[in-house]
Amino acid sequence: MGIEVCRAVDRADDLDLVAMIDQGDWLFNASDASAQVIVDFTAPDVVMDNLHWCIDQGINVVVGTSGFTDERLARVKAWLAAKPEVGVVIAPNFGIGAVLMMEFAERAARYFDSVEIIEQHHPKKVDAPSGTALHTARLIEQARKAAGKPEMPDATTDEMAGARGAEVGGVRIHSVRAAGLVAHQEVLFGTTGETLTIRHDSFDRASFMPGVLLAIREVVQRPGLTLGLAPLL
Amino acid sequence: MGIEVCRAVDRADDLDLVAMIDQGDWLFNASDASAQVIVDFTAPDVVMDNLHWCIDQGINVVVGTSGFTDERLARVKAWLAAKPEVGVVIAPNFGIGAVLMMEFAERAARYFDSVEIIEQHHPKKVDAPSGTALHTARLIEQARKAAGKPEMPDATTDEMAGARGAEVGGVRIHSVRAAGLVAHQEVLFGTTGETLTIRHDSFDRASFMPGVLLAIREVVQRPGLTLGLAPLL
Amino acid sequence: MGIEVCRAVDRADDLDLVAMIDQGDWLFNASDASAQVIVDFTAPDVVMDNLHWCIDQGINVVVGTSGFTDERLARVKAWLAAKPEVGVVIAPNFGIGAVLMMEFAERAARYFDSVEIIEQHHPKKVDAPSGTALHTARLIEQARKAAGKPEMPDATTDEMAGARGAEVGGVRIHSVRAAGLVAHQEVLFGTTGETLTIRHDSFDRASFMPGVLLAIREVVQRPGLTLGLAPLL
Amino acid sequence: MGIEVCRAVDRADDLDLVAMIDQGDWLFNASDASAQVIVDFTAPDVVMDNLHWCIDQGINVVVGTSGFTDERLARVKAWLAAKPEVGVVIAPNFGIGAVLMMEFAERAARYFDSVEIIEQHHPKKVDAPSGTALHTARLIEQARKAAGKPEMPDATTDEMAGARGAEVGGVRIHSVRAAGLVAHQEVLFGTTGETLTIRHDSFDRASFMPGVLLAIREVVQRPGLTLGLAPLL
Repeated sequence: MGIEVCRAVDRADDLDLVAMIDQGDWLFNASDASAQVIVDFTAPDVVMDNLHWCIDQGINVVVGTSGFTDERLARVKAWLAAKPEVGVVIAPNFGIGAVLMMEFAERAARYFDSVEIIEQHHPKKVDAPSGTALHTARLIEQARKAAGKPEMPDATTDEMAGARGAEVGGVRIHSVRAAGLVAHQEVLFGTTGETLTIRHDSFDRASFMPGVLLAIREVVQRPGLTLGLAPLL
Repeated sequence: MGIEVCRAVDRADDLDLVAMIDQGDWLFNASDASAQVIVDFTAPDVVMDNLHWCIDQGINVVVGTSGFTDERLARVKAWLAAKPEVGVVIAPNFGIGAVLMMEFAERAARYFDSVEIIEQHHPKKVDAPSGTALHTARLIEQARKAAGKPEMPDATTDEMAGARGAEVGGVRIHSVRAAGLVAHQEVLFGTTGETLTIRHDSFDRASFMPGVLLAIREVVQRPGLTLGLAPLL
Repeated sequence: MGIEVCRAVDRADDLDLVAMIDQGDWLFNASDASAQVIVDFTAPDVVMDNLHWCIDQGINVVVGTSGFTDERLARVKAWLAAKPEVGVVIAPNFGIGAVLMMEFAERAARYFDSVEIIEQHHPKKVDAPSGTALHTARLIEQARKAAGKPEMPDATTDEMAGARGAEVGGVRIHSVRAAGLVAHQEVLFGTTGETLTIRHDSFDRASFMPGVLLAIREVVQRPGLTLGLAPLL
Repeated sequence: MGIEVCRAVDRADDLDLVAMIDQGDWLFNASDASAQVIVDFTAPDVVMDNLHWCIDQGINVVVGTSGFTDERLARVKAWLAAKPEVGVVIAPNFGIGAVLMMEFAERAARYFDSVEIIEQHHPKKVDAPSGTALHTARLIEQARKAAGKPEMPDATTDEMAGARGAEVGGVRIHSVRAAGLVAHQEVLFGTTGETLTIRHDSFDRASFMPGVLLAIREVVQRPGLTLGLAPLL
């Protein structure tokens, strides 16, 4: 993913690639090269140190690393309070299609009696459901709560064990894992006599690059913490 | 459709069904019964007379009849100018799912290189493409134009004849007709490495009733002409 | 369902409707009317008595009632052994599309590394997964075993609770329940770089009638027990 | 595609890669290396000369090149008549999922009133419809004719121009072209109250390799001409 991002930045006419930092390399390389923005696709155990250093140095950051709990986000905000001119964008998914899918799911939630999520991924994925599915379920839960929607209708009494997925905030998620798949998600809304389906298919990591470039361009004009790509669209 | 609407109004706790007017019946029945709103699901050749009479009588109108050209809409606006307290809602589709599909299609249009529409209906339908597909294509065309999107990529040079569908404002529409189908539409957006699909399935006329009831409740508070259900959501 | 079947038989030129038997009515009405075939859409607690009586009377039977365990099927076979001229067709699903879906799923099973089933039904359904999904999973399990296919790839280690569905014979089933849905099933096969999806959508009980009529026509020429509609196609 | 095939053969334990022949190289390299099978992914203007030479030399051939008319096939058969021990497999698509899709479409054709094909490809494709879609349509046409199916129901009277696709043998094909797509095809069957959909998604050329390897293994045991992968499954 790191190399892919470097390539995308290098190809963009309005951006300059000034440093590539791999595992074991020093972050100083970025400040030495006068980087205005650092993009972090690392791992949950190092991302907080990276963020602290960048904010301290006054460098804006775009983060695609996962594992941000409410507590971690609070810490980032505290660091940013001391450096009000720095911008940080943390996003669970940089695919513009995925971001729109989540926005539309949140918007549609109040108008339908039922909604379930079917996420489909390659069989090497270790977590089920996917982070994007969990995030979508929470957005839907909040939108339904705000609109005063009652619990979804479900007469199931006779059940079996062994399904892959989850129930998050009253929203059922189905996690399909199969060879041949890449990364796909379907949000199915239903009410009397009709259904509305929003589906995102990602075939290639290249699909995340327009979103990463957008975040790089925007973060320099957005001091403070921005969560998700939605506010940038 | 008329009977279905009467039933839905009758069942709604906050609405009263005061008159049912069939072909050949007098519209006076509605004013005699002090109707606040008239719902018109008639035919293109009578709807304009109905509208004129209602506006003249100061009765609000919800219209599901098709065939509204720009010229007809101009005439309705002229009548309303003389009766500024009257509200008229004219909508091509009362399915809330369909309305959201169009809204989402318009919103997504600027972010993708390509978009095509696949609409699927029962084989007794006489027009292809459907009115909803045409309306969606025009919304997409305008959104792309406003965002300065170039023409869609398409290397096709070797073509054949006989397809059912259309090209409207640069957007291809595919019209599928098959036994077993009811009313379905898919809007497929694509850009590097990803696609976003918005699909609406309508299995039953009952799916239009929530939208009709919404329009009835809203039209009394919205003087003037409202086009489509979107502004009411 | 019973009334629907009576209507379909009545409309068929080559069939005569000679008796309609509801809960509480006597089966003798059917033999008095010289019925050649009885169609049973009743309930698990009465279907065995009905079947015993019909076979005893030498009347062929088409059964759409669910709840047939291996033990029950063995009992039916024993009864038929004493009446070798009588035919019985017991089918979990009379939709020709559903029958073909199961046939194709069984056929494709040996060629793909992974397969999962997504069944989608209205929220009044009490059992999850559906009978058709369970039957499909077992067909796939047997076909994979016969072809010596290894277990499906699945790296999931980080799981959550609350999904609706099952694992049957190594095949994951996902059970979606939402307002607006009728009866739908998707079987998704995947191998390196490609997926094959077989989907059946049933919008209306009317879709079962061609299958019921086919079974009625065929059962008179097929002494003994026939399981499922597939052998009749 | 050639390099991909060489790699796949090289990786297979039971096969030996003895020669790689590019544009401009001599076919003699293959006979010098004692090749038992030659795989031809070339172009319509050279494939016939290649085939003639291979058959003459007694080398079996697997052909993935397109452009085989009935006349060309007759010529290949004539060459094979003189060399009855040689086998030739010519296939329009080596994806096992695509082959099964075509088999299932042919099998289902007689049971449904309506069938339409929706093929979806990347926008760099020059021909519309795709070869696979045309082949599927012809298989369906023949199956319907053999079963005595009447014309499909279609009440369309009010049409527009500009659709991309075709009508082949009474079967409508819809050709979708969009960025982000790779190679996909959906065959939609419909009859009263139900639809059956068979969909193939190919995300990667790698998906063709299992089919190519199967053909290589089988062609040495199948003298004469074999059309399509279906007979090998």
